[in-house]
Amino acid sequence: MTTTYRRWTLAARPSGLPRPTDVALGEVPIPTPAPGQVLVRVEYISLDPAMRGWMNDARSYVKPIAIGEVFRALAIGRVVASGHRAWAEGDVVSGMFGVQEYACLDGGELTRVDTSLAPAPTHLATLGMPGLTAYFGLLDIGKPEPGQTVVVSAAAGAVGSVVGQIAKLEGCRTVGIAGGEAKRAYLVDTLGYDAGIDYKAADVKAALREACPNGIDVYFDNVGGPILDAALANLARHARIVICGAVSQYNSAAVVGPSNYLALLVQRASMTGMVVFDYHARYGEALAEMAGWMKEGRLTSREDIAHGIETFPATLLRLFSGENFGKLVLQVA
Amino acid sequence: MTTTYRRWTLAARPSGLPRPTDVALGEVPIPTPAPGQVLVRVEYISLDPAMRGWMNDARSYVKPIAIGEVFRALAIGRVVASGHRAWAEGDVVSGMFGVQEYACLDGGELTRVDTSLAPAPTHLATLGMPGLTAYFGLLDIGKPEPGQTVVVSAAAGAVGSVVGQIAKLEGCRTVGIAGGEAKRAYLVDTLGYDAGIDYKAADVKAALREACPNGIDVYFDNVGGPILDAALANLARHARIVICGAVSQYNSAAVVGPSNYLALLVQRASMTGMVVFDYHARYGEALAEMAGWMKEGRLTSREDIAHGIETFPATLLRLFSGENFGKLVLQVA
Repeated sequence: MTTTYRRWTLAARPSGLPRPTDVALGEVPIPTPAPGQVLVRVEYISLDPAMRGWMNDARSYVKPIAIGEVFRALAIGRVVASGHRAWAEGDVVSGMFGVQEYACLDGGELTRVDTSLAPAPTHLATLGMPGLTAYFGLLDIGKPEPGQTVVVSAAAGAVGSVVGQIAKLEGCRTVGIAGGEAKRAYLVDTLGYDAGIDYKAADVKAALREACPNGIDVYFDNVGGPILDAALANLARHARIVICGAVSQYNSAAVVGPSNYLALLVQRASMTGMVVFDYHARYGEALAEMAGWMKEGRLTSREDIAHGIETFPATLLRLFSGENFGKLVLQVA
Repeated sequence: MTTTYRRWTLAARPSGLPRPTDVALGEVPIPTPAPGQVLVRVEYISLDPAMRGWMNDARSYVKPIAIGEVFRALAIGRVVASGHRAWAEGDVVSGMFGVQEYACLDGGELTRVDTSLAPAPTHLATLGMPGLTAYFGLLDIGKPEPGQTVVVSAAAGAVGSVVGQIAKLEGCRTVGIAGGEAKRAYLVDTLGYDAGIDYKAADVKAALREACPNGIDVYFDNVGGPILDAALANLARHARIVICGAVSQYNSAAVVGPSNYLALLVQRASMTGMVVFDYHARYGEALAEMAGWMKEGRLTSREDIAHGIETFPATLLRLFSGENFGKLVLQVA
C-alpha cells in the first residue's frame, strides 16, 4: 500500500494563459483522518474556466488560491477512511477536494453522490455545478417565456449545453453558438437547438440577425468579447442578458468591455451577473428536476474525460483553446 | 404682424461633435391651423443630450431626424390660433414642437402646462421629461432602499440633480459626480448630496471608494465611459446600475464599453437601460408627487436659459462641453 500521494499546488500567478511552471506537482504523505474527518481517494476532478480567475490575486466571488496551496477544484471520490459517523468506507462523495489524489476534510464538507442516478462524472456536469449554473441562471435570471428566443454562447459546453436543453423544455426557440462545424452540428443534431452558429466560420452578428428574426429575448453569456457585442446588437425589447462567465477574456491582461452596451438603453434590456453558490438552498429541487429529465431522456450530459493527474497543466489549457467537447473532467487514475 | 417664422432643420449628419453646418436656419410662412389643429407660438425649447443621437442614422428608441426635417425638440409655447375644441388662444402647452418659432399640430399632440405650479421652463426640467426620467429610473429600476448608497453621474444636470434629491428623500446616502469645483460645491450645498466628486480633479475610482465605504447599491449613469467603469469597480453586492444615458460617448465614432462589466458577475449586480416614454401612463402620479415636493421646498429645479433661437447650434454644443449648469433651455424670443 502506498503511503504518499501526488498533488498540484499553485507555484506562480500567470499573466495570460497559464504556463506549466505556474503549477507544481508534489508528493506528500497520506494523512490519517482525525475524529470528525474523512479521507477520500479522489477519482474525478472537475476542470472549469473559472479556475483561471482563482489563479489571479484579484477581488472576486471567492478568494484567490494562495501560492503553495493545493489547486482548488471540485471533485468526486470514494471514502477510504472515516472518522465521521455520517460516512463509511466506500461512500461516493463530492467536495472541494482539489487537484490531488487524496483529500482529508471535515465530514461536513462532503456531499453524497447518488451513482444510481448517473455515473460519477455526470455529477460534475449536468447533475453538478454546471447544470445548476445553467438551471438557475436561465430560469431565475433569464426568465424565458414559451415562444421566446434564447441564445447561448459556448453552447456545447458544460453549462451552455444544459441551458439550451432546458430552454427548449420551456418551449423557447433556441440558438446556440460554438466553435467549429463538429460542435455546430452537435448543437442541432444532439442537443436539439433550433439553430447553431459556428463563430469561427460565421459573422456572428449577421448570423444572429438571421436566426433570431424577432430579436433575442434571453442571451446566456459564457464568453464575453465580440460574441457578447453581437448579441447586444440583436436584442429584442426588454431582453435579459445573463452574465455567467467570459472565457474569451480570462487570459487577457485587460478585459474588453461590450461596446454595444447602450443597446440595453435602446431596448430597455438588462444584463445581470450570477454566481451559482447563491442558490445553495435550492440545489436539491433543481437536481431532482434535472435527474427526472435525464431519466425521461429529455436532458443529456456529455463529459470529455482526460486521464492521469500528471496531465493537469496541459488538460487545463484545453478549456481555453475550445478543444474540449462537453464537460472537461480529469480522471485521476 | 409677421407672416413668416424661423426654424432649424437638419442639414447633414455629423460624425463627432455637431458642426454649425449640420443644421440650417430657414424661414417659412406661418400656417393657418386646419380643423382639429392648433397653432402654437414656441417660447421655450428643451435642449437635451439625446438630441445628438437623433442626428445619427441609427436604430434607437426613436427614429432619426430626417435630413431637411425640423430639428426635433420638446418645447413649451402658447396657443395663438385653435381649430381644436380642447384648446383656446392663450393656453400654455407643451409638445414636440421642434426648434422653431411656430408649430402647427393636431390638438391631441399637446399637453397642458400648469404655470401655477412653477414657471414654464421648470416644466422642461424637474417637472418635465428630465424629472420624470429621474423619478422612474431611480425608483422603478434603481429601487433604492433607505440607508443604501446611491451614486449619480452628471449629478448637477437636469436628470441627475433630481435623482440625487429624490434618493435623499428616500433616506439614502447620496454621492454626486460632476465636473468642476463650482458644480461639486453646488451638489453638496444646494442639492443636498452627502458627498460630491469633481471628476476633473479627482481619481473617480479612488474617490468613490472613499465616499462609499460599503460600496454602491444604486448607480444612476448618465455619462458612460471611465466614470461608469469607476462605479463598476465599487459596486456592493446585488447593486443596480441604471443606464439612462452616456453623454461622454454620444460624439464618439466608436463607443468604449465598460471594461469592468464583469463586476456584475462578481457582485451579482445588474445593469438595466430605461427610456422615460415607457412610463407615459404614470406621468401624472409622478408629476403630482414632485410638484408637492417642490411646494414643500424639498425639491429644487434649476434651469440654464439661453436666449434667441438663432443661437441654437452654439447652445446645443454647451451640452457636450459640460458648460451648462442645470437644465439647458433655449428661450426663443
